Amino acid sequence: MSEITLPDYDAVCAAEDRVRPLARITPLLRFEMLDEAAGAQVFVKCENVQRTGSFKIRGATNRIAQLSQDEMKRGVVAYSSGNHAQGVAGAARAFGAPATIVMPEDSPRVKMDGVKALGGKIVTYDRASENREEIAAGIARETGATIVPSYDDPHIIAGQGTAGLEIARQAEEAGGPLDALIVCAGGGGLTAGIALAMEGLSPGTEIHTAEPEGFDDHKRSFESGRREQNARMAGSICDALLSPSPGELTFPINSSRVKGGFAISDDQALDAMAFAFRRLKQMVEPGGAAALAALLVHKPFSPRARVGVVLTGGNVDPSVFATALKRV
Amino acid sequence: MSEITLPDYDAVCAAEDRVRPLARITPLLRFEMLDEAAGAQVFVKCENVQRTGSFKIRGATNRIAQLSQDEMKRGVVAYSSGNHAQGVAGAARAFGAPATIVMPEDSPRVKMDGVKALGGKIVTYDRASENREEIAAGIARETGATIVPSYDDPHIIAGQGTAGLEIARQAEEAGGPLDALIVCAGGGGLTAGIALAMEGLSPGTEIHTAEPEGFDDHKRSFESGRREQNARMAGSICDALLSPSPGELTFPINSSRVKGGFAISDDQALDAMAFAFRRLKQMVEPGGAAALAALLVHKPFSPRARVGVVLTGGNVDPSVFATALKRV
Repeated sequence: MSEITLPDYDAVCAAEDRVRPLARITPLLRFEMLDEAAGAQVFVKCENVQRTGSFKIRGATNRIAQLSQDEMKRGVVAYSSGNHAQGVAGAARAFGAPATIVMPEDSPRVKMDGVKALGGKIVTYDRASENREEIAAGIARETGATIVPSYDDPHIIAGQGTAGLEIARQAEEAGGPLDALIVCAGGGGLTAGIALAMEGLSPGTEIHTAEPEGFDDHKRSFESGRREQNARMAGSICDALLSPSPGELTFPINSSRVKGGFAISDDQALDAMAFAFRRLKQMVEPGGAAALAALLVHKPFSPRARVGVVLTGGNVDPSVFATALKRV
Repeated sequence: MSEITLPDYDAVCAAEDRVRPLARITPLLRFEMLDEAAGAQVFVKCENVQRTGSFKIRGATNRIAQLSQDEMKRGVVAYSSGNHAQGVAGAARAFGAPATIVMPEDSPRVKMDGVKALGGKIVTYDRASENREEIAAGIARETGATIVPSYDDPHIIAGQGTAGLEIARQAEEAGGPLDALIVCAGGGGLTAGIALAMEGLSPGTEIHTAEPEGFDDHKRSFESGRREQNARMAGSICDALLSPSPGELTFPINSSRVKGGFAISDDQALDAMAFAFRRLKQMVEPGGAAALAALLVHKPFSPRARVGVVLTGGNVDPSVFATALKRV
């Protein structure tokens, strides 16, 4: 038996002081045309305009800020298809810590360029034949660097939760608490952090996940009550949401706090990107549009319901964006 | 001799109460990569995510809110290539007034669709052979509708100025007043309104205009001291900025309050759109990117200067956006 430490609402609040200097308070926006299309009063949290282009800077900052001076010098290592990669590189640079990022060879170009622009060193691997955890562990052994996990870490979860604190406060300022909130899930770190934040500030808000079809491990796990695996690790346009299963830490947090999950197809993600382009003037990557897609496709709420969706990232390659534009 | 009434700072403040129920407070965002590219501390006012996709809802609301019940019933008529059209249609709908919009046949499709979606009736004309003012005047005579001008009206100017009140307050919250602010200019209504707002709240902020090359009537007028005409009325990708000359009302306001003007090419506008896509995750139309383009091209400020740019609109056709994407 090994003990695990789960973060709680207080951990999210403590994270906010560490995260604030680096992560910006992103806007929570309203759009009439979205209300009409979704059949609800919708509040859009724009983490796509977050520093480094996604919410991932929040958790990375909360983790790296707690390293010792000596650990900072030895640096950090992370594995990620790109948003966590950029979040870690951005946070590491702010603390003067060297960052090495293990990225799949087929990561979106815009994400690899982003890591380089933030001063991160990239080591690529083949998704099919190589194991990214092993590569990262090897680098950590050789250099003494600290591994910064992308979701299964209490500090990462607490850091991502700071987005939830903002959502709860911004919704309150805009007239009252949300009835529901849809968050996309890969490993479930953002969902878990937001669930903890909402538990403290807005306990009446129902939380739902959104995932790509075929990678709906959270949805299936909520239904079965145990951590279900995805059959595949590649094959969706939503590159940011392809994790093997809900996390060891994230699942116990989410399973008791999340109401249920939605699954959306690649086509529906692209349609949501096109909708965000045309009607919201927002640039969103496929995975970052999953919650919006779930809302537009499933229309699960009543017209008077106050519903939040998180646009989690905006790091999209121009060629993928051009594919979405053809749908406008 | 005819007398003209110029709005002042108090008129902008009075407009805010009328405008607030319809126009949202848009975010003022910071981006590290923009600071690096522009060589200044840049604050981006996102009127591209304003209701109806541009700042134009502000002035239209301030004008229409002051119609009598009887005038509201007879409706409003406006002429515009699209952003003012959508602003007037959106504001008219909110007040239950019918709106007829005279639009060039070659208006961006997204703007014509926007007017229709907002319940506006469209009458098209040929830019080369027909006179939009005459068409609008004819409609007004026949129907008793009130003409809502796109810039040369004290209520329109005061309404657009509410964006300036927000910029001044948001900059103050973010550490202090702006040293400079770049605003794109067509007829100069937004610039004039913002100049009045800044005069009241942030008198030390230098204001500059941005215009397309060949349509730099403001720049030339500031230099000569009189209202210069543009040689052409078409031929720039910045469809929102093609006015014949600075306005009769806007010029006396701007000439004493604006420091100078920048001109940018179509290519530079497209480059700025691509930069906004890649680095700011913002959807901006060509004219709406003119101020950003001027900042990126001319880099006119010192690295410590606090400089605002207004992204004025996000109503861009997918085909034009695809052209910009090729530059990323």
